Amino acid sequence: MHEKLRAHIEKIVHLTDEEYVFVSSHFTERHYKKREFLIQKDENVKYAYFVLSGLLMLGYNDEAGKHHIASFAMEDWWETDFLAYHTQTKATLSLQCLEPTHVLCLSLENYQRLCAGLQKMEHFFLAKANSGHIASQQRILSFLTSNATERYDQLLRRYPALLQRVPKTLIASYLGVSRETLSRLSS
Amino acid sequence: MHEKLRAHIEKIVHLTDEEYVFVSSHFTERHYKKREFLIQKDENVKYAYFVLSGLLMLGYNDEAGKHHIASFAMEDWWETDFLAYHTQTKATLSLQCLEPTHVLCLSLENYQRLCAGLQKMEHFFLAKANSGHIASQQRILSFLTSNATERYDQLLRRYPALLQRVPKTLIASYLGVSRETLSRLSS
Repeated sequence: MHEKLRAHIEKIVHLTDEEYVFVSSHFTERHYKKREFLIQKDENVKYAYFVLSGLLMLGYNDEAGKHHIASFAMEDWWETDFLAYHTQTKATLSLQCLEPTHVLCLSLENYQRLCAGLQKMEHFFLAKANSGHIASQQRILSFLTSNATERYDQLLRRYPALLQRVPKTLIASYLGVSRETLSRLSS
Repeated sequence: MHEKLRAHIEKIVHLTDEEYVFVSSHFTERHYKKREFLIQKDENVKYAYFVLSGLLMLGYNDEAGKHHIASFAMEDWWETDFLAYHTQTKATLSLQCLEPTHVLCLSLENYQRLCAGLQKMEHFFLAKANSGHIASQQRILSFLTSNATERYDQLLRRYPALLQRVPKTLIASYLGVSRETLSRLSS
């Protein structure tokens, strides 16, 4: 199916050709246009998405109508509203394309089948979940300990490509600062 | 060994007596006094800890010497500096007892052996890692979208017991607000 998915998984576990046929049979493929939604608030969350190309934004609208950004996801990243996906509840977040985006879709049922059917895949997803958990903890610490300048510098250091591709207003929202503050930082 | 650990694991996967003997053989047991450190900054992180009783605080000292709190952990919770544990690097966080605390210790080597030796345990740890990832994402959203009052109310709703056991100064640090702000909120 997609050598990108195989290469991504094989950073963690080696798969035989036969195993990869089994793995890839659990995914479906979709193309989305710029600005299209993969997940909308209050809808069911059917899939976790593996990004083959493009750029996604996971966002949240608060009661005052203000838009906040939980995360961005580009090539080789997994994204969904994980709470709604794993607990099969309605989405509280939205997932939208910032660029034309090509994804592989994995339903929760197929995720569970993959884990049960091939321990290597359970091991792979455990490694990804641990990395995700660690990255989230680092971001929590950055909210507690860093000011806007430091958070911007961290983002620049970790994901230089992202800053080229994402409008400044959205970067400001991700960092939890105003557009004006960000302009001062990035000028 | 400890029925609490077994009961905790069996919320997710059922174990036979024989399997539980295998599982519990991977843990060692330790008692810590109030204020003792399980992890200190810049030291190696040998273990992830399962809390049988007591209360732990995972903290971070910034360059100005200010102490920030990443999380609390009480009975039935797992805690460690996950980045340092999984990547076998030096601790950036510290883990300290707020009460006399009784823990089970799991080395990374034994974590990996447990996962490889019994797929049920890999499945268990995947479920825990997914929950941890989800909880972290919810906390990130709370930093972006909620003010101090709302964050305090969320904490009160989710972990009422915690507020009885943790000094107000530490709750303030966890919420990222001043002690004075917290006094207004909780009075």
